[in-house]
Amino acid sequence: MQTTFRNPGHAVRHQCRHGVHKHPTPGMAAGHLQANLVILPRDWAFDFLLFCQRNPKPCPLLDVTEPGDPEPRHIAPGADLRTDLPCYRVWEHGQLIDEPTDVVRHWRDDLVSFLVGCSFTFEQALQDSGIPIRHIEMGRNVPMFRTNIACRPAGRMHGPMVVSMRPMTPGHAIEATRICARYPRAHGTPVHLGDPSAIGITDVMNPDYGDAVEIRPGEIPVFWACGVTPQAALMHAKPPFAITHKPGHMFVCDLKDSDPLVQG
Amino acid sequence: MQTTFRNPGHAVRHQCRHGVHKHPTPGMAAGHLQANLVILPRDWAFDFLLFCQRNPKPCPLLDVTEPGDPEPRHIAPGADLRTDLPCYRVWEHGQLIDEPTDVVRHWRDDLVSFLVGCSFTFEQALQDSGIPIRHIEMGRNVPMFRTNIACRPAGRMHGPMVVSMRPMTPGHAIEATRICARYPRAHGTPVHLGDPSAIGITDVMNPDYGDAVEIRPGEIPVFWACGVTPQAALMHAKPPFAITHKPGHMFVCDLKDSDPLVQG
Repeated sequence: MQTTFRNPGHAVRHQCRHGVHKHPTPGMAAGHLQANLVILPRDWAFDFLLFCQRNPKPCPLLDVTEPGDPEPRHIAPGADLRTDLPCYRVWEHGQLIDEPTDVVRHWRDDLVSFLVGCSFTFEQALQDSGIPIRHIEMGRNVPMFRTNIACRPAGRMHGPMVVSMRPMTPGHAIEATRICARYPRAHGTPVHLGDPSAIGITDVMNPDYGDAVEIRPGEIPVFWACGVTPQAALMHAKPPFAITHKPGHMFVCDLKDSDPLVQG
Repeated sequence: MQTTFRNPGHAVRHQCRHGVHKHPTPGMAAGHLQANLVILPRDWAFDFLLFCQRNPKPCPLLDVTEPGDPEPRHIAPGADLRTDLPCYRVWEHGQLIDEPTDVVRHWRDDLVSFLVGCSFTFEQALQDSGIPIRHIEMGRNVPMFRTNIACRPAGRMHGPMVVSMRPMTPGHAIEATRICARYPRAHGTPVHLGDPSAIGITDVMNPDYGDAVEIRPGEIPVFWACGVTPQAALMHAKPPFAITHKPGHMFVCDLKDSDPLVQG
């Protein structure tokens, strides 16, 4: 008997759960919200939740589970965060110890899961409005940079804001700002545009994460708060135990990018 | 030597700290943000923070302190939440045990303070746009009602959404919705308008909290998520210890209602 899926997001999660899909998720279940995943023991969950509350642009929370509950009841009822992503990373004291395709054997009754909004949402909206996205055109990962913008600390969590960069004409930068204002749960408006050194970036062609992309004459770099920010702060804080998604291997939601939740 | 104040909000807090002002704050430091206060032991803070994260319309968080720290560093640096409100309520197991003008002797190293946005912000914006507010015209407290809209529960915190009601013409209701959309940290857009029974209110002239107000011919009742919601859920959950502001005796911030923080 064939399984019936509620929507394409459900279908992708089913393929992940049964080990059929183990690859990155960009482009899958088009129009469906994708989310970053961070899983922490309850003892660390308050600090992380507070860090997200204090830094909503890099850390827009879409859902947080009860301790021990692997089901994100708000954004994907019936889903299981232990199995429904294509690939995970398991960390002990800031060291990567495993990269499994499920985390059933790592699960504990005190684990709290955080699902954090992602730039795929606004990139789709920009492309739909005719604004080209350079790293997608070039088939590369988006360039990301550590900045001199300090996040507001929370308990053991602190660190600089990490930003992603997309080159645009000034006209496109203005239009992109207008469009991104609609998506506060997907990093919202840019945090900076123009001179990279104003936010502590010394070489815009040498990103700290991801790939470099061309900036053409007449274009300016436009910088958005990035979901790598909380993961970088977490790796620096070195909790005894943590699980994250493997970069690019996201959680695909039932919700669509256009859902009112994502729009604040 | 006379004290110099940074702004009218600072001046009100100074008067509270020194026992000069012990009365309700509506109308004081006009244009400055006022906030609801909830203080809980760290053991309960995660549940409360999660409840706010899951129910942002009734519980829009403006600031959360570190355990033991009485200073709301984000919205009023230098303020002291133990002394800078005109009057407090102290609770044990859901029972009111004290109504002091400061909580210095109740303070503990594990207390986390939550400052929650308040309807005064959008009421000022509505009045500035020429939309009259009935309960203010009548010199009464706003009418508030328990609804059949369930909040998303979080740990030990659960309960119905409490709403406030303002009668308006349909034209003013539409304009008020447009204006309130600018203030997601002050309850945002209405949650309902028209038929009170659709959200479980049996008698709109008999509020559960506050005072009844007249609804004139041609007007409809318009309902907003209310900051009483988290306090009602908390009183039902009966934590061993809690401190809140006395109703109407709010924390007055350095920030103005127009600050970008309040606008999301």
